[in-house]
Amino acid sequence: MFRLIWADESGLPADDRGAAYGDGLFETIRMERQQGVLLSRHLERMVRDARRLGISVAHRDLARVCSEAVERLHSRYGGGWVLKLVLTRGSGGRGYRPDSAMLPNLMVQSSPLPPTPEPEGVVVDFSRIPLTVNPLLAGIKSLGRLEQVMAAAEITDPLFEVIMSDRDGHLVEGTRTNILLRHNDTWVTPPTASLAVAGVLRQWLLERLRYRGEPVVERPVTTDDVLGRECQGFFLLNSVLGVVPVRTIAGHDLPVDSGLATIFNPLEILE
Amino acid sequence: MFRLIWADESGLPADDRGAAYGDGLFETIRMERQQGVLLSRHLERMVRDARRLGISVAHRDLARVCSEAVERLHSRYGGGWVLKLVLTRGSGGRGYRPDSAMLPNLMVQSSPLPPTPEPEGVVVDFSRIPLTVNPLLAGIKSLGRLEQVMAAAEITDPLFEVIMSDRDGHLVEGTRTNILLRHNDTWVTPPTASLAVAGVLRQWLLERLRYRGEPVVERPVTTDDVLGRECQGFFLLNSVLGVVPVRTIAGHDLPVDSGLATIFNPLEILE
Repeated sequence: MFRLIWADESGLPADDRGAAYGDGLFETIRMERQQGVLLSRHLERMVRDARRLGISVAHRDLARVCSEAVERLHSRYGGGWVLKLVLTRGSGGRGYRPDSAMLPNLMVQSSPLPPTPEPEGVVVDFSRIPLTVNPLLAGIKSLGRLEQVMAAAEITDPLFEVIMSDRDGHLVEGTRTNILLRHNDTWVTPPTASLAVAGVLRQWLLERLRYRGEPVVERPVTTDDVLGRECQGFFLLNSVLGVVPVRTIAGHDLPVDSGLATIFNPLEILE
Repeated sequence: MFRLIWADESGLPADDRGAAYGDGLFETIRMERQQGVLLSRHLERMVRDARRLGISVAHRDLARVCSEAVERLHSRYGGGWVLKLVLTRGSGGRGYRPDSAMLPNLMVQSSPLPPTPEPEGVVVDFSRIPLTVNPLLAGIKSLGRLEQVMAAAEITDPLFEVIMSDRDGHLVEGTRTNILLRHNDTWVTPPTASLAVAGVLRQWLLERLRYRGEPVVERPVTTDDVLGRECQGFFLLNSVLGVVPVRTIAGHDLPVDSGLATIFNPLEILE
């Protein structure tokens, strides 16, 4: 179990390890009134990645908190809203060293939906902040997101997002989005093991594309892949924002294939 | 300026960006009753590294808080104690994106001194957790320390510390210590640009050694450097714990030269 904290009543305790060391992880879930988009997948990811960090939490307990959150919070918002779950290892311990008997803290927050991205496509750039991913923490939406914060500071009008590259110069992901490329009639996305955050929409979309028999390849993505002639579309994936087509990257116009956006409709996947 | 929070009264606000994204940094300062060991250097590092993150804070304001903290806290402890300053970018903002007008939060905590390491040397091992350092964040004692937490979980009796390596296999630092090697009559330590945390004791000690005319080299350190015949001593550096000689690493006994520990006496450097 965990200690439950409603963010409208209080913050995390002063000795919480999330605030001290980024020792925890979070989920941000799009809610449509009383139902969560890809909710089960969000909770599954939190349970699985918490276990990778040595934090034990049960899916059914998280699901019960989400139900309570809906009861308590949904009437504040007209329609859609965002539910955030912050799970930390707990309070105390001797320095960095975690104590396996620690009771985790779970803080529940809500916020309005962000603005809807322009359906005709957004403008992005390459980030100057390199992305470094510890192989043992790859994919985990942990509380240590300072690289993303620094890169997000580069997002000024008219940019919607910046795309971060790893040490080898491969494009990996945006600050808050995974990337998907339509390249030479194939869907291409960076491998899960290379990701800072392995998004639930990305995983759901890859499964759906494969189910439909479409060719999907997970491999490193280069700048040339995106800027070259074989690029047939470049998309950003975020479970709150959906599938967002990119129309311009670093001043280069890209073909906008909005077909992908139509097969993903958040209202249809209230799992 | 900043919003001052005393941890014995409350934690950080629920919407604080330190807890949300590791968007901040901290200092841990050894106090001897009413005076701080290497205090000016700690505050200089916080001011400088905050600026690298786009967080503005003045040395004199931090110094004033330290004076208040001494007044308020020192009588709780018999002699030595530990003062911790946690500086975050502040509260709110739109997702990762920081708002330059944000008022930082500064949380002040205190704790007893940790146990004194055995003067005849400690036992350490190599960590299985790889260390990844973003070149733009190198050296910053930021709030994102999940790698160190995961590595610290490996520290079980009789271990005092584990030494983490980067992707190239170079030994970089311990979970809470910088490393210094006596090798072939030269002091060797990994370059500042490779460090996750550039410790104030490390910097002070390198300056003092150079001032005394001793040969000091900053270069990548390999396992062979430590385990080979030319190793004349291996030391851990931490501004709260001091200079800690290592007597055994991964089962290999090392020569213990306690000379270095005697030139560093925390009580003598109340700057």
